[in-house]
Amino acid sequence: MNFIGCDSTFEDARAVIFGAPFDSTTSYRPGARFGSSAIRRESVGLETYSPYLDRDLADVPVYDAGDLELPFGSPDFPLAAVENATAHILDAGKTPVLLGGEHLVTLGAVRAAAATFAGLHVVQFDAHADLRDHYLGQTLSHACVMRRCHELLGDGRIHPFGVRSGAQEEFAFAAGHVSQASLADLDLPADTPVYLTIDLDVLDPSELPGTGTPEAGGLSFETLRHALMDVFARCRVVGFDLVELAPTLDPSGRSTLLAGKLLRECLLACRFGNEKQDIIKENTQT
Amino acid sequence: MNFIGCDSTFEDARAVIFGAPFDSTTSYRPGARFGSSAIRRESVGLETYSPYLDRDLADVPVYDAGDLELPFGSPDFPLAAVENATAHILDAGKTPVLLGGEHLVTLGAVRAAAATFAGLHVVQFDAHADLRDHYLGQTLSHACVMRRCHELLGDGRIHPFGVRSGAQEEFAFAAGHVSQASLADLDLPADTPVYLTIDLDVLDPSELPGTGTPEAGGLSFETLRHALMDVFARCRVVGFDLVELAPTLDPSGRSTLLAGKLLRECLLACRFGNEKQDIIKENTQT
Amino acid sequence: MNFIGCDSTFEDARAVIFGAPFDSTTSYRPGARFGSSAIRRESVGLETYSPYLDRDLADVPVYDAGDLELPFGSPDFPLAAVENATAHILDAGKTPVLLGGEHLVTLGAVRAAAATFAGLHVVQFDAHADLRDHYLGQTLSHACVMRRCHELLGDGRIHPFGVRSGAQEEFAFAAGHVSQASLADLDLPADTPVYLTIDLDVLDPSELPGTGTPEAGGLSFETLRHALMDVFARCRVVGFDLVELAPTLDPSGRSTLLAGKLLRECLLACRFGNEKQDIIKENTQT
Amino acid sequence: MNFIGCDSTFEDARAVIFGAPFDSTTSYRPGARFGSSAIRRESVGLETYSPYLDRDLADVPVYDAGDLELPFGSPDFPLAAVENATAHILDAGKTPVLLGGEHLVTLGAVRAAAATFAGLHVVQFDAHADLRDHYLGQTLSHACVMRRCHELLGDGRIHPFGVRSGAQEEFAFAAGHVSQASLADLDLPADTPVYLTIDLDVLDPSELPGTGTPEAGGLSFETLRHALMDVFARCRVVGFDLVELAPTLDPSGRSTLLAGKLLRECLLACRFGNEKQDIIKENTQT
Amino acid sequence: MNFIGCDSTFEDARAVIFGAPFDSTTSYRPGARFGSSAIRRESVGLETYSPYLDRDLADVPVYDAGDLELPFGSPDFPLAAVENATAHILDAGKTPVLLGGEHLVTLGAVRAAAATFAGLHVVQFDAHADLRDHYLGQTLSHACVMRRCHELLGDGRIHPFGVRSGAQEEFAFAAGHVSQASLADLDLPADTPVYLTIDLDVLDPSELPGTGTPEAGGLSFETLRHALMDVFARCRVVGFDLVELAPTLDPSGRSTLLAGKLLRECLLACRFGNEKQDIIKENTQT
Amino acid sequence: MNFIGCDSTFEDARAVIFGAPFDSTTSYRPGARFGSSAIRRESVGLETYSPYLDRDLADVPVYDAGDLELPFGSPDFPLAAVENATAHILDAGKTPVLLGGEHLVTLGAVRAAAATFAGLHVVQFDAHADLRDHYLGQTLSHACVMRRCHELLGDGRIHPFGVRSGAQEEFAFAAGHVSQASLADLDLPADTPVYLTIDLDVLDPSELPGTGTPEAGGLSFETLRHALMDVFARCRVVGFDLVELAPTLDPSGRSTLLAGKLLRECLLACRFGNEKQDIIKENTQT
Repeated sequence: MNFIGCDSTFEDARAVIFGAPFDSTTSYRPGARFGSSAIRRESVGLETYSPYLDRDLADVPVYDAGDLELPFGSPDFPLAAVENATAHILDAGKTPVLLGGEHLVTLGAVRAAAATFAGLHVVQFDAHADLRDHYLGQTLSHACVMRRCHELLGDGRIHPFGVRSGAQEEFAFAAGHVSQASLADLDLPADTPVYLTIDLDVLDPSELPGTGTPEAGGLSFETLRHALMDVFARCRVVGFDLVELAPTLDPSGRSTLLAGKLLRECLLACRFGNEKQDIIKENTQT
Repeated sequence: MNFIGCDSTFEDARAVIFGAPFDSTTSYRPGARFGSSAIRRESVGLETYSPYLDRDLADVPVYDAGDLELPFGSPDFPLAAVENATAHILDAGKTPVLLGGEHLVTLGAVRAAAATFAGLHVVQFDAHADLRDHYLGQTLSHACVMRRCHELLGDGRIHPFGVRSGAQEEFAFAAGHVSQASLADLDLPADTPVYLTIDLDVLDPSELPGTGTPEAGGLSFETLRHALMDVFARCRVVGFDLVELAPTLDPSGRSTLLAGKLLRECLLACRFGNEKQDIIKENTQT
Repeated sequence: MNFIGCDSTFEDARAVIFGAPFDSTTSYRPGARFGSSAIRRESVGLETYSPYLDRDLADVPVYDAGDLELPFGSPDFPLAAVENATAHILDAGKTPVLLGGEHLVTLGAVRAAAATFAGLHVVQFDAHADLRDHYLGQTLSHACVMRRCHELLGDGRIHPFGVRSGAQEEFAFAAGHVSQASLADLDLPADTPVYLTIDLDVLDPSELPGTGTPEAGGLSFETLRHALMDVFARCRVVGFDLVELAPTLDPSGRSTLLAGKLLRECLLACRFGNEKQDIIKENTQT
Repeated sequence: MNFIGCDSTFEDARAVIFGAPFDSTTSYRPGARFGSSAIRRESVGLETYSPYLDRDLADVPVYDAGDLELPFGSPDFPLAAVENATAHILDAGKTPVLLGGEHLVTLGAVRAAAATFAGLHVVQFDAHADLRDHYLGQTLSHACVMRRCHELLGDGRIHPFGVRSGAQEEFAFAAGHVSQASLADLDLPADTPVYLTIDLDVLDPSELPGTGTPEAGGLSFETLRHALMDVFARCRVVGFDLVELAPTLDPSGRSTLLAGKLLRECLLACRFGNEKQDIIKENTQT
Repeated sequence: MNFIGCDSTFEDARAVIFGAPFDSTTSYRPGARFGSSAIRRESVGLETYSPYLDRDLADVPVYDAGDLELPFGSPDFPLAAVENATAHILDAGKTPVLLGGEHLVTLGAVRAAAATFAGLHVVQFDAHADLRDHYLGQTLSHACVMRRCHELLGDGRIHPFGVRSGAQEEFAFAAGHVSQASLADLDLPADTPVYLTIDLDVLDPSELPGTGTPEAGGLSFETLRHALMDVFARCRVVGFDLVELAPTLDPSGRSTLLAGKLLRECLLACRFGNEKQDIIKENTQT
Repeated sequence: MNFIGCDSTFEDARAVIFGAPFDSTTSYRPGARFGSSAIRRESVGLETYSPYLDRDLADVPVYDAGDLELPFGSPDFPLAAVENATAHILDAGKTPVLLGGEHLVTLGAVRAAAATFAGLHVVQFDAHADLRDHYLGQTLSHACVMRRCHELLGDGRIHPFGVRSGAQEEFAFAAGHVSQASLADLDLPADTPVYLTIDLDVLDPSELPGTGTPEAGGLSFETLRHALMDVFARCRVVGFDLVELAPTLDPSGRSTLLAGKLLRECLLACRFGNEKQDIIKENTQT
């Protein structure tokens, strides 16, 4: 079952959706593994048409590749699988759209994108800093994912928005190493490749209760939608993800529908920057 | 069990509440059939007094007629039953207050109101356009209800507010046939008869998760309450409904309480336009 | 997503699974529409191998045709669609396996089976008699399905087991028109074509809470499994169904898993009587 | 809304149902306050006819008096209200049928029955001994209800069945003061007045999960049904109750349906011993 | 299990947390008894550091005394126990932090605080007036708690914010006896002792669905957080409470996390006014 | 918070309870991580006294060590932590009682027990064979745990009961390598050291719905209780565990209470074989 309106072939597609149903490092409440399949299944409750953008998914060729088959436990193999899938899509000049799963899966996608695009930046919507160096002795943990990305990308290349929770040392690290600018001040050269990661817990828990660690005081759907439209309008987004939807934690089902609606808006807003001729690959991973 | 404070007799009442527990055409998630009885039952968690209006249901004579006994399956009989009940209340010079059930039941009430009041307008609060000509081959469907109303009433007589979802052709149809004005611009002559239909999914799913198809980006309770007070103040409301509460989809129970509170505010705000001497009946159905 | 291990093509298959996600006539609690898709989705929690039968679905060619796309509301079209699909499968000499949906969908399958096989009998596992002539004015209702089957088949051709609820007149009708024998006394000639309908509410609600009208005092899984194995061993089953699973009414999810396990056992036990040369078609519907 | 089929007037009735929605002394998980109203509301999912007894509630005049309006907090007033209501029904020569609420409400009914019938015995179905002298400093607690009854009735007059949990001192007290006989050995003179109290947690939690303190290893519905039929056949039951249904603890709803079915069977089995001429009142409370 | 980061000893602590798991007078939906333990347990989903205040619980000595062991039923003993515990903490010059339980438990704390601090004021955040003189015949009820406090403190000493529900007579009483000022106009002398009671239902039900009587139209988390910071900044808070969290009514768990986050912010914002030398005790209760 | 009645010190204890809240390799539905803490917390709904055994936990010294702090993701560290904790308890001559967590944690305990006791046997109650060599590429998986134990112990040393699900190759492996005897035929020399592992999914899902992979056709509580009493009576149990309780999958809460009751019965039945003088340690791990 595909996400509504995403019935293109891989060859014809400009974007490729794939899911990474993995949540083994989730420390508080698991369930993000069910996110990607729920978004697809419940998309029958949505329309393919966006009145916000006056565009229709019927007019955008997207291939839905389904979910990766991932083992649970150690994140090594799942991260490699996400990286390979992302690289495969990028190699074909298409935009990868990753559905989590927990936030750690973003690391696989960023590894592939950083290998493809020199000078990659990451725009992060998230309630949590995710900048721990290690968590309960592990370095590959949802709580460390942006720290690992920082190691790949370097200072000033991560642009977090919506963060309102973290340990004291994470905020201290952030002050020196990641962007402190507001979204209005985000000003990247037009051809800068940007990977966009949307941890859905950036939303207020009243609008998205279905996530492992809901954090009060978040963004409204409308605020996030406008912010994302802004990012897609101003940046060359070479790949993006939606992660940390845990559908079973929200018996009302509205979290899943909201995530699907957001995915639709992103697919309709994306300019598919990977198709440009001027993509300069730094190096390519196998 | 009556809705709190609505213990008048039919004879003494200015408004008559009745429920239509029908949801057989609901295509995504059923459960609106339980809406009307839940609103009554949980109204013990409310007060009869409104601090917003400084009025009390104890001072307004309302009769609660309970729920119609409706079969499930084909909507033909249920629509006729709603139409008959509405006509009976209108004939007695009282204001019908219909509790759904799914949005299709509104069609029965509008049929009766249109037969009673020449030049009827419909004010619609709704997340969805509901303007499909047919849906999965059916013309009597929740997804088509305003299209059927349009056939009864004609162009420019339907005034939708809050719509944020629909197929492309619905928005195209709307552009040519239903009002595009904002609520602030709604300007009807004072004696224009208005039927008010409130699909509760116009509210944001964070405030009303208990509905079949929650659609992100909706109105807050306070915004809707003010808008409704505005409609009651400026229009001659000859009947109204609240539909699409599906209480079992919200285990917290707050959706039902909110719907009941909204019903209380509407009952206290209504000027009961049907009692005026100048009602001109176009024709009367049996 | 197919039911686990059912990845044959239509051509190669001996049995064909299809779903009828319809529950519009359900009068008490809807939700059976979600049954067929839930059985498929959750089948990843099962094994293809049955230790009871020492057989594996990998060795039985089954095609999973997915769900019919059905409108909600009037049952006329859905019943016709089920009848057509069943007839198509029977015409190909394969065994139809219908997943409900509410029990009324069985009528579509029985119509097709009765048209194909002269002298069809129906073996019914059910908590409820379902023998009402009409229910709330409707003749096409889940509560009337076996009465409608009786009209097609005649006296003594319906063999109900597990019935423990019904109106007084249903039991009176049953006494004169349907079999009163126990399962041990079911004794049909070996080539008698039998359609088997399993309303899952025949099980005790402790084992299958996920159904619209759970009725205390039912069969255990083990009792039902043995009874079904008995039917498959002694009868020529030309088609069968599992109906009335309403997965959202069971938050533990075990009802869906049990239904899937039962489906696996039935598929492994079925002798696929339709492939015999001696099928005599009475008449064929388009 | 009455319990299904119980639409007699008080005057014509042989039995009178009333609810006591009180659970303030419940120590583990509250919610029994919702029991009586849920049994009534969900009784639309039942039939009035019992195929077990081949009798129909339509043929037994029962009045459903609804729920007492009780404050929460101290049990003093609620117990007095139950006692008064029971006495009123007994005075009219009718059989009181009390729906809890928590088990403590039984004390009010037993007080009235003991005041009306000299030599009253109590038959108790229960998972818990409920024989504590006091619990957390309170003597009026669900955990002490049978101890309070013992104080009213004396040794050997309480006949518990199904008890499988309690403190060591409760079992010690039981050994000396309440009957230790099995149900088969229950042998009371035919005119001995018996009050029957059914704490629904005597059932296995698999069949009745909706209760405050589910205790594994309980009776099946069929076992309890047969036992109750036995008590009604062999004893002069002058009043009875069903208590400790906590419907919200069972999202599947089957606990409530089971309780309603049991109530139907009890109403149909009861011989209404209070109508006999030979009732000798010991004394009457106001 | 302590609330996160509150691992001080009683002796070293500046604030002492204790729970009062009592909800026996709750009239609509019980469950507040589970509030205090849930806040502690789920606090592992929070951080000890507040990015809002740039402070960490690791730097504030707080002792978590656990829950009082309270009987259910009559509120007399529980209120005395809360009063004694509060007095004990106040006597030691520490700030009591009471976690409900229902709102009635506040009365015990206010009794102790009023006995310790002459001229005590109460700042109340609440959706409900709680000013009934009696409720269903009871004077010690959650619905009367602020009326009882008024009897202790006198006119103009209670400052309610966020109230949007109550009976007509409660609002009439309020007009004459409690403060009508907005929070911006709250202007108390700097050394006025203030007891702060936070009924969590002051929040909008979309953000805090887990409460017994959710009332639409409430405050957002951010609004409440700022208001509380304002109170702590401008007033000498000598004790405070958070009450009416009913965690089981919110299956998403976000209500509990929000309450814990609010508790953290309050602990970090509190100036611990009780340690000042100038505390003048009016009289001391045993 | 300790398990009810288990308030001994480590030194005085004969048994030591500890939890391993790990479920990262769970492939179908996670949640077993919450099992151990739920069993403790909900044990307040139990009594310390067993009427089955006429013994009381007050008379058996048990220390409850709480839960290990384990990272999520790779199982390497968690298994080592369980092994170390078990070894520490065994070294002190006490009986380890491990509460899962998923079934994989048993491997840590069996490693320690096998290192301590030459000739260790394992008695396994389980719905699933758990004998896969690898699962989705992993060898340390819940689905492989008994295969890993077999590698440690050798042929004929594992005695599974209740298995009713597995892949064909698991049953094939079982036929050659693990015991095929029924419980009645289990006949080990009296001093044979036995580790007992109870995967709670051996129970029927009607009695224990709160587990990740409920498998129909299981044991009743009474059957399992008797079987366990039999094992404790006939074997020298040197350690045991209860695993795979996933409490959030059972909103009724009865699964957790049942698990706690079973734990109580096991603690009361255990003869604490480790205290015997004749323990011969094969080798000791650090």
